[in-house]
Amino acid sequence: MRLVTLRRQGPGGAGIVLGDEILDLAGCAEVIPAARALPASLRGILAGGDASLDFLRRVADLALGDADRLRESRALVPAATAILAAPLPDTGMILSAGLNYHAHLHEMNTPVPTRPYAFAKSAGAIIGPGEAIVLPPAAPDMVDWEGEFSAVIGRRCHNVAAAEALDYVAGYTLINDVSARDWVAPVFAATGTMGPVMAWDQNLLGKQFPTFCPMGPALVTRDEIADPDAVELTTSLNGEIMQSANTSDLVFGVRQLIEFYSRFYVFQPGDVITTGSPAGVGYGRTPQIFMKPGDRIEVRASGIGVLSNPVVAG
Amino acid sequence: MRLVTLRRQGPGGAGIVLGDEILDLAGCAEVIPAARALPASLRGILAGGDASLDFLRRVADLALGDADRLRESRALVPAATAILAAPLPDTGMILSAGLNYHAHLHEMNTPVPTRPYAFAKSAGAIIGPGEAIVLPPAAPDMVDWEGEFSAVIGRRCHNVAAAEALDYVAGYTLINDVSARDWVAPVFAATGTMGPVMAWDQNLLGKQFPTFCPMGPALVTRDEIADPDAVELTTSLNGEIMQSANTSDLVFGVRQLIEFYSRFYVFQPGDVITTGSPAGVGYGRTPQIFMKPGDRIEVRASGIGVLSNPVVAG
Repeated sequence: MRLVTLRRQGPGGAGIVLGDEILDLAGCAEVIPAARALPASLRGILAGGDASLDFLRRVADLALGDADRLRESRALVPAATAILAAPLPDTGMILSAGLNYHAHLHEMNTPVPTRPYAFAKSAGAIIGPGEAIVLPPAAPDMVDWEGEFSAVIGRRCHNVAAAEALDYVAGYTLINDVSARDWVAPVFAATGTMGPVMAWDQNLLGKQFPTFCPMGPALVTRDEIADPDAVELTTSLNGEIMQSANTSDLVFGVRQLIEFYSRFYVFQPGDVITTGSPAGVGYGRTPQIFMKPGDRIEVRASGIGVLSNPVVAG
Repeated sequence: MRLVTLRRQGPGGAGIVLGDEILDLAGCAEVIPAARALPASLRGILAGGDASLDFLRRVADLALGDADRLRESRALVPAATAILAAPLPDTGMILSAGLNYHAHLHEMNTPVPTRPYAFAKSAGAIIGPGEAIVLPPAAPDMVDWEGEFSAVIGRRCHNVAAAEALDYVAGYTLINDVSARDWVAPVFAATGTMGPVMAWDQNLLGKQFPTFCPMGPALVTRDEIADPDAVELTTSLNGEIMQSANTSDLVFGVRQLIEFYSRFYVFQPGDVITTGSPAGVGYGRTPQIFMKPGDRIEVRASGIGVLSNPVVAG
């Protein structure tokens, strides 16, 4: 099942992709009264666990049987013209791993870590597919991409073994961990060489600017991805591929990240764990490449789709 | 106005303290129909901005005029017997400053920083007043307290000047930034001496365990605190005062923290900025003191109240 959030004023907007159309759950209650029982947002639906997702599947089946009436009442709309928000614009936590692809570690001349590293990216930075990444006036010159495969938690959990970790995953999405390198690079370089880091949070600040967390285009339920450790992933800038990876190259896959971090964190439905950037960021290139107004950056993964965002000046 | 969240199954539970009673907003709609217009949770109410808080004041006034009927319908209950949750159990972000009291820096033999330092504490760790802090089986021996004065954001904001910062504050609460020092100390010591930090997130992990974020007892609106830079604050362990400070000793007060961090972050209603620990943590004492089962830890501030939590084994 492919779940999306339709962009609108205020919260809500949960929808299901049905072929080349989207079922607007808030708009379908007249034709499918059962849909009234559903929370308005994907995060709210996830909070109901697997039972909510099963119920959503039933609503989808009912919708397919009554598609004409739903089209008439505009509860079933063409996907091509629908304007989407991030699937989880109101997520509680984005735990963002780094230094996690072997090829990326190699390009940064960094040893393979013996445990995962991650930081928190803030929900205030989230935007949806098609929304513009705004180059911040205070740091416009070193804005870089990191196209990342991400898992969405479906059940509250703590102390989860890797072997059971996927039971706690609702599904998957994509995140572009946009980063102003002038506020990230010192730590990145320092970590790479295992040298000193002078501040607790230097690494975070350049990743928190408004619009720096494109997410989407959809949240695909976990049954749609046969193996999260075998997902093809690319990031292209103006049509040219900048990053190309398979999650099989991850040092710590989704299962291992959940196992390690759930020893400390309590994960809640809707929390996002993003697995880190493949090789090919602009900062690591010779010469370096950064995003500029007029660019378009696209993160693409098999089974999830394309997260495409234009870049504008702030 | 003193706002609380009543503990119950599922979301919601917003309430107003009226003298020595609490108005349960979900239960009062029969007597005060206007209350139906309010979101169920304090976070939802904060999302409505100052207009929502003004509306809440009107509901409180109506309640005072119809107190007997509200008592009959159990929508007005004695505060002494009410069981509270954290005011914002579902907050989006807790940005937690550190190294921020002059006296604490002095006891740690650390230079006064030229900019704030902060990290993200996760919402999954939040508990309410009276709920037990559970010593984690994996790290039970160095669990420490940090009683902190905290500001709650009331309006979405970015790039806010210190002089206007309080316009974006809905109110204040208390947080006990409980920390397993065996997962914090290496970074803490390293930062203190400006030595190397080997991991991006080493500092975070020991602060994320379940129950490690007591919050409350109330969210007091900003009009209740004449000056956030003049709040008396104590933390006591089993009745003995361990931390005693005034926020006038903060290196960076609420206004300065909002100014600095809003240059990067987008703050949203319900986000919490906690100002850091005063001197007197258990880790800094000779001999060191850590929490053990049967202890009771209490954070107290003028104008906010007492956040009291027992400690139990995991």
